[in-house]
Amino acid sequence: MELLERLGLGSRRVLILHHDDLGLTHAQNGAYSALGLPTGSVMVPGAWAPAVRGADLGVHLTLTSEWQAPRLRPLTAGESLRDEAGYFPSTLEALWQRARAEEVERELRAQIEAAQRLFSPTHLDTHQGAVMRPDLAEVYLRLAQAYRLVPLIPDTLEGLGVPPPFLPELERLMAEAPFPRVRFLDPYGLPPEERLGFYLGLAHLPSGLYYLAHHSALPTPEGRALPDWATREADYFALAHPEVRRVLAEFHPLTWRAVREALKEGWR
Amino acid sequence: MELLERLGLGSRRVLILHHDDLGLTHAQNGAYSALGLPTGSVMVPGAWAPAVRGADLGVHLTLTSEWQAPRLRPLTAGESLRDEAGYFPSTLEALWQRARAEEVERELRAQIEAAQRLFSPTHLDTHQGAVMRPDLAEVYLRLAQAYRLVPLIPDTLEGLGVPPPFLPELERLMAEAPFPRVRFLDPYGLPPEERLGFYLGLAHLPSGLYYLAHHSALPTPEGRALPDWATREADYFALAHPEVRRVLAEFHPLTWRAVREALKEGWR
Repeated sequence: MELLERLGLGSRRVLILHHDDLGLTHAQNGAYSALGLPTGSVMVPGAWAPAVRGADLGVHLTLTSEWQAPRLRPLTAGESLRDEAGYFPSTLEALWQRARAEEVERELRAQIEAAQRLFSPTHLDTHQGAVMRPDLAEVYLRLAQAYRLVPLIPDTLEGLGVPPPFLPELERLMAEAPFPRVRFLDPYGLPPEERLGFYLGLAHLPSGLYYLAHHSALPTPEGRALPDWATREADYFALAHPEVRRVLAEFHPLTWRAVREALKEGWR
Repeated sequence: MELLERLGLGSRRVLILHHDDLGLTHAQNGAYSALGLPTGSVMVPGAWAPAVRGADLGVHLTLTSEWQAPRLRPLTAGESLRDEAGYFPSTLEALWQRARAEEVERELRAQIEAAQRLFSPTHLDTHQGAVMRPDLAEVYLRLAQAYRLVPLIPDTLEGLGVPPPFLPELERLMAEAPFPRVRFLDPYGLPPEERLGFYLGLAHLPSGLYYLAHHSALPTPEGRALPDWATREADYFALAHPEVRRVLAEFHPLTWRAVREALKEGWR
């Protein structure tokens, strides 16, 4: 709560509403433009990354590429980051089995520096939580410091699918990191037909610092080429709905840019 | 004409109808599926490359990336192939000023070998004619031999926008190459409203070996994000038209696969 008090928001319900996977498809970028919400993060290896323009954009650090297409490649040469055809591994398991931490660090630095050529990033998060392996989490938190970009850190690891052997060390790293932790909300796995109910239910949350990750995409043929298009469209239609907007308007809308500004003195 | 005689097509009108820029967008791939024509080539650095499936696919060797998005990066590390943000240069001029031939060779080999992981390529051509600089043309023709992939070689360099200083050496290389040369047709630069007329006019061509490059793309929001969408859609609508199909049916349809087979004995 220290951050909220510093921001004078100690007793409020505060929400960072975050658009994941920008730069991956035209449909994802189109939803970002159509919704008019400032905060999201960009998959820099994505072909549509240079087209994202916005007020509060971060780097959606990418180490996996889970669909047949669009399929993404690392920016750097690390052999432990790619499959036989040169793409990122398609699963977290394959990544975590092979990835060498020094090659991950080189790749993440390249993604951050490429992002800085495209826009002015405010924060870091990771695609599919690829840095949950503790030695990669250490890299993630160290780069956040090095580049002065606020990293997403959830307030609990429960329900995030972290492999049990990673938990103690990951929890220790997160507890020691000099960054705020957020209550992580993510409707991705809910059935699309329950999406509107999920968003309307936010009205009942108590005060606190919430982070809501959504994956909104426009209903287009390209958007629907992704196997999980239905959950992306469900986010888009819900967040475009006036009743959901009315619920969201009851929260103080926080940006990572404002958080970064508040932490200004704290960067090592 | 030697090739046509070997194929028993000496007096015929023979057409390789070629779909350029596959793998660049979902709309381009979608048009390839919808038209059901076998021959085209894939931009391997494109995010949609792994989704292309077809009977006569080649490698659309890529050294430039001319749109703000989708924007493509080299597969290899060569500094002379990328701009400050790590993308291919956006113009041929910028490419030709900077590109080192040995870095081009490494990149083109990587694209061919990555393509071989995705499909079974039959031929080579190049995006925007990036290998017209003579030392790069030498690499292109050498790799065609090395990988046994038939390279596109036009029967004349007139009207292709080759910088005059490149012409003598380029003409010599092409004349010496042990590959068939084709009469190159490309409606890309024609106004879209003249496209149907262009295709219908093919009915009046004399016998010979023709190569027609088209850039068909579906009329979708993603397809229309490309500044040149109108010419791509014009190709798509023309080639989907029954009257154009009737004109095309008067040609013997040739694939690069058949050409490759006919050249079998000739590979050094």
